[in-house]
Amino acid sequence: MSRPPIQFWFDFISPFGWFASLRIGDIAARHGRTVEWRPLLLGVTVLKVMGLKPVMDTPLKGDYAARQIARYARRHGLRLARDPAAPPMNPLPCARLFAWLRVHDAAHAQAFACAVFDAYWAEGRALDEPATLRVVALRAGLAPALVERGLADPAAAGLLRAEVEAAVAAGAFGSPFVIVDGEPFFGVDTLDQVDEWLARGGW
Amino acid sequence: MSRPPIQFWFDFISPFGWFASLRIGDIAARHGRTVEWRPLLLGVTVLKVMGLKPVMDTPLKGDYAARQIARYARRHGLRLARDPAAPPMNPLPCARLFAWLRVHDAAHAQAFACAVFDAYWAEGRALDEPATLRVVALRAGLAPALVERGLADPAAAGLLRAEVEAAVAAGAFGSPFVIVDGEPFFGVDTLDQVDEWLARGGW
Repeated sequence: MSRPPIQFWFDFISPFGWFASLRIGDIAARHGRTVEWRPLLLGVTVLKVMGLKPVMDTPLKGDYAARQIARYARRHGLRLARDPAAPPMNPLPCARLFAWLRVHDAAHAQAFACAVFDAYWAEGRALDEPATLRVVALRAGLAPALVERGLADPAAAGLLRAEVEAAVAAGAFGSPFVIVDGEPFFGVDTLDQVDEWLARGGW
Repeated sequence: MSRPPIQFWFDFISPFGWFASLRIGDIAARHGRTVEWRPLLLGVTVLKVMGLKPVMDTPLKGDYAARQIARYARRHGLRLARDPAAPPMNPLPCARLFAWLRVHDAAHAQAFACAVFDAYWAEGRALDEPATLRVVALRAGLAPALVERGLADPAAAGLLRAEVEAAVAAGAFGSPFVIVDGEPFFGVDTLDQVDEWLARGGW
């Protein structure tokens, strides 16, 4: 009997989401599991639902996050082309298209998310412009006509909204947020625990 | 040339501080290092300086923390005698006496902190009553006359205040918060990274 996929929630504007996106697939595969990539918006979960400030704007926490990001990047040989403390792009265009693709071209949705993360964090390109978003979507192997349909479909906003509501309902608030068979793991610092949880079948 | 001690900041009312207190000494000793135990107050760092709510009262985060605490306890074979979601004791009497002991009986300060953590989290005893605090202090091997001096000394409040200000100045805001040669690590989820950092001499 095949087990349900691991839920991997993230926001494209989160460097920790990017970090986790590079490892979650390998971790799951080691244990014969698949991953469902799902979008959330920190602007909704953290700011509205939790009533907090953006991490980078929170006294003390912002400075810590900057150290934590740099430390993680060094440890894993990654280079950020963008200052995580700088104002982020508007994540809505990417996140809406991603939510739309999950329904209309599920086979390419994850490749699209990877391409967005890579373009934004490794190349430093902002993707709130449709022109740039198109280029990145094509890189991910999407059919050009499909990209146009997705960008033009007014239903995309509702699909994203439903995902964010599902995140809140599942208790997922941050990026990354991983749920394994109902057990929640928040933050890149818990990825090794996800691995151990899968290896041991929980504890 | 001996290296400076690892800074271990905590609040007695934090279960994660208790968890870390049980491991930080072993981690440091494995690498020939010592630990300086230092008090902070989440009521100052998190509530006043950062402008956040208590973790357990934060939507979504509170539920997650409850899961995280239970999971950590199971993994490490610990049993909490107190519900982390229940209102905490007033940490001031314990933290003030601890700050005072750091100056007046440094040899017993850490044993006192361990005794407080143990009584509060493993036994479920509130220590905001001087009578209970006295018993726990004696358990830690403190001289009775010294305990009375510490409890009566009005300077204890200022000693604690100075510690909390030092925490904020060092960027320490949570419990546990570990600083190794200037590198900050927040939360029990980073203890394995502290170990790795010490083993590799940073990265």
